[in-house]
Amino acid sequence: MRCVVPLAVARPVITLTTDFGLQDAYVGIMKGVMLSIAPEAEIVDLSHEVPPQSIEAGAYLLETAIDYFPAGTVHLAVVDPGVGTERLPIAVSAGRATFVGPDNGLLYPAVERLGATSSRDGTLGSAVAVLLANPEYQLTRVSRTFHGRDIFAPAAAHIALGLPLDRLGPSLTTISTLSEAAIHDTDGAVVGTVIHVDRFGNSISNIRAEQVPANPTVEAGSLQIIGLAQSYQDAEVVALINSGGRLEIAARNGSAAARLHLVLGSPIVVRASR
Amino acid sequence: MRCVVPLAVARPVITLTTDFGLQDAYVGIMKGVMLSIAPEAEIVDLSHEVPPQSIEAGAYLLETAIDYFPAGTVHLAVVDPGVGTERLPIAVSAGRATFVGPDNGLLYPAVERLGATSSRDGTLGSAVAVLLANPEYQLTRVSRTFHGRDIFAPAAAHIALGLPLDRLGPSLTTISTLSEAAIHDTDGAVVGTVIHVDRFGNSISNIRAEQVPANPTVEAGSLQIIGLAQSYQDAEVVALINSGGRLEIAARNGSAAARLHLVLGSPIVVRASR
Amino acid sequence: MRCVVPLAVARPVITLTTDFGLQDAYVGIMKGVMLSIAPEAEIVDLSHEVPPQSIEAGAYLLETAIDYFPAGTVHLAVVDPGVGTERLPIAVSAGRATFVGPDNGLLYPAVERLGATSSRDGTLGSAVAVLLANPEYQLTRVSRTFHGRDIFAPAAAHIALGLPLDRLGPSLTTISTLSEAAIHDTDGAVVGTVIHVDRFGNSISNIRAEQVPANPTVEAGSLQIIGLAQSYQDAEVVALINSGGRLEIAARNGSAAARLHLVLGSPIVVRASR
Repeated sequence: MRCVVPLAVARPVITLTTDFGLQDAYVGIMKGVMLSIAPEAEIVDLSHEVPPQSIEAGAYLLETAIDYFPAGTVHLAVVDPGVGTERLPIAVSAGRATFVGPDNGLLYPAVERLGATSSRDGTLGSAVAVLLANPEYQLTRVSRTFHGRDIFAPAAAHIALGLPLDRLGPSLTTISTLSEAAIHDTDGAVVGTVIHVDRFGNSISNIRAEQVPANPTVEAGSLQIIGLAQSYQDAEVVALINSGGRLEIAARNGSAAARLHLVLGSPIVVRASR
Repeated sequence: MRCVVPLAVARPVITLTTDFGLQDAYVGIMKGVMLSIAPEAEIVDLSHEVPPQSIEAGAYLLETAIDYFPAGTVHLAVVDPGVGTERLPIAVSAGRATFVGPDNGLLYPAVERLGATSSRDGTLGSAVAVLLANPEYQLTRVSRTFHGRDIFAPAAAHIALGLPLDRLGPSLTTISTLSEAAIHDTDGAVVGTVIHVDRFGNSISNIRAEQVPANPTVEAGSLQIIGLAQSYQDAEVVALINSGGRLEIAARNGSAAARLHLVLGSPIVVRASR
Repeated sequence: MRCVVPLAVARPVITLTTDFGLQDAYVGIMKGVMLSIAPEAEIVDLSHEVPPQSIEAGAYLLETAIDYFPAGTVHLAVVDPGVGTERLPIAVSAGRATFVGPDNGLLYPAVERLGATSSRDGTLGSAVAVLLANPEYQLTRVSRTFHGRDIFAPAAAHIALGLPLDRLGPSLTTISTLSEAAIHDTDGAVVGTVIHVDRFGNSISNIRAEQVPANPTVEAGSLQIIGLAQSYQDAEVVALINSGGRLEIAARNGSAAARLHLVLGSPIVVRASR
C-alpha cells in the first residue's frame, strides 16, 4: 500500500512594480484579485512610488531587482500612460522569470538582462511573448482605466499557478524596446540622463559600465568629476559604477541630487580625460 | 488502514485600512498581533495613508476594494478619532466578508454595498453585528489609545481562524451610518463633496452614478463641465463615472485637484443641463 | 506500516526595519534574497521610513514592537551609516527573538528590553551574539554599499530556517550600546531629547517612565507642562507616559511637533514640580 502525501508546492512569488502610490487602494485591489486566483502566491512589492508615468525609472527598478528573486518568479509591472489606448498588454517568459505588463518598453531592459533577446531592436531570442487577449483569464468586465486589476493581475496569478503562456493569447515576435540607452555623440562623448534618484539623493544614469572609458571625466550639473570612485566615502561628490552596473553620482554626506540640482532627465556626459 | 493526510487549509485573508501611515511601527505591530494568533493569515494592506481621521475617505477605499477579495476575507479598518471614548468596537458579518473596526460609520458603506442592511438608517438586514466585548479575545492589557492593536487585531485574527462571531460579544441590531451621501437640494441639484483625491489628482465625490442625470452639468471649483466623459482622454478636464460607481473629476495630463483647487470636502454640484 | 506525514511547520516570521524608504527597490530586493533561501518565511515591515541614518529612531521602533510578535521571530534592522567601514555585522539571540543588523547600537535597546544583557555597558547576559563572518551564508559577491542585501538578509533567512547561530561566525561577548538614555544633570533635572515623531506629530522622548518624578514639570519647546496626563484628551497639549513606557508630548487636536517646533533631537527636560 502506498501512502501518497501531496508534495509541498513552493509558494509562487509575484513581484509588483507600479506608479500607483500607496495612498489609494489600487495596489491592495490587485493583490485581492491575485489571491482570489492563486491563494498560495507570495506577493512582494518592489516599489509603488515610481514617478508617475516614468517608464524609464520603473524599467530600471525592475531590471536591478530580478537577479535576487527565486527562479520562477512572476514580475508584474504597471507604469502605463497609454492604458486604454492601442498599446498591447503582454506577458514575456525569459528563462528564470516571467514578466507581465504593458508593451511600452517597461519590461524590455529586464528581458534583455536575462539574455533572452536576440538584438536591441526588440526581436526576441529565447524569450517567448504573448498578447494577453484571452478573456477567460481576465476579469469579467474590463475597464478602460485599470488594466492592472482587470488584465495584468489575473494573468500574473494564472501564470504563477503554472498556466502555459500560449493559453493567454497569440504569440508575438517582438516587444517594444526602451529608447533609454545613452548614446555616443559625434565628439566621442557619451551623453546620458538621470533615470532614477533614490531616497538618499543618489542619481543613477542610463550610462552602463561598458560605456565608460577607463579614466573618465563626468559632467553632472555644473560639476566636472575626474575619475571613478570605488565607494561613497572617497570624496565629497563621486561618480561610481553602482551595484546595478550603471554610472551613479553620489555625495558622501547628503544628496547629490540636491547639491547638483539633478532631477529625472538631467544630462550626464562622460568623456575620456585628456 | 487509512492514511489521513491533513487537508490543505486555504490561508485566510485579512485586509488592513488605516490612517496610521507607514513611518511608525503601528501597522507592523498589528500584524505581529495577528500572526501570533493566526500564523497562516495572509495580511494585505489596502492603504495606511487615509488622511488622518477622515472616516469618509477610509470608508470609500474599503467599499471600492471588497469586491476583489476572496469570499471569507476579514477586513480590518481603523480610522478612529473617537478611540478611548464611548464609540463601540464592533465586528459585522455581511455574507462574503466580515468587517472589524470602530462603529463610527467607517464600515457602513461596505456593509451596505454587500446588500446586508435593510434600510439606510443602519438597521441590519442579513448582516450580523456584535460588540467586541469579550476580554478573552483582546490583549491582556487594553490601552486607551491603540485599540487597533489591543482589540481589533486580535478580533480579526480570531475571526479569520473561524471563531463564531457570537463568541466575541453581544449582538447589535444597528450600526452607525455615515452621513456621506450627496443630497438633493431644493432646486433639484445634487450637492456632494470630494471624499478622496488619489495619487494622480483624480478627485472622487460622494455622488453615485444613479444620482447623476443623463446630461449633467457638473460644477467643480470654478469650472462648469458639460456632460460625462467615457475616458480620461476625452478632454482636458472631464467628469466621469469611475470604476467604483462615483462621479469623479479628472484631468487628462495632470492633476484635476491641483488645477481646480479641489481638496477633501470641496463641493461638487450636479444639475441637469438645460 | 507507518504513514509518515510531514509536520506542518509554522511559517517563520521575519520583520524588517530600515531607513531605505519605499520609492526604491532596496526593500523588495532584500525580500527576494530571503524568499530565495526561506520560501516559507512571512516577512513583515515594521517601518522603512526611519529618518535617514537615525539609529535612535530605528532602535525605538524596533524595541516597542518586539513584544507583539510570535516567539522565534527574527528581527532584521538596517540603519547603517557605517556600512562598508569597520562596524561589525552581527546577530544576537535573546530568548524569544533573534536580531540581525549592524553593531552600532541599533539592536541594543531591544536586546536589553528582553532582559538579555547583564549590564548597561553592552556585556551580554543570557544573550548570544555572533559576528556574521561565514561567507557560506552571504551572497557570493558582497558589495561595500548594500550589506542589507548581501549579508543581513541571507543571515536572517538562514536563522529563520533554524540554522544554529554559531554557524554564522565567532561569538562576541559584548555588543555596542546606544548612548540614547536621558541623563540626570547636576540640578537633578532629567535632560532628554525627542527620538521619534510619529505621523500624528506625537513627540516621543528617550525619557523612560522610571525617570519621571511623581509630579513633574516638563519643558518642551517654549512650553512648561505641569503634571502627567492619562490620555490624549486631557488638555490641549499633554505630557504622558506612552504605551512604550516613554515620556511623550502630544496635542489633542493636532501635531505637538508642529505646535512646539519639536524635531528629532529637540531637548525635553523634566523636573520635580515645587
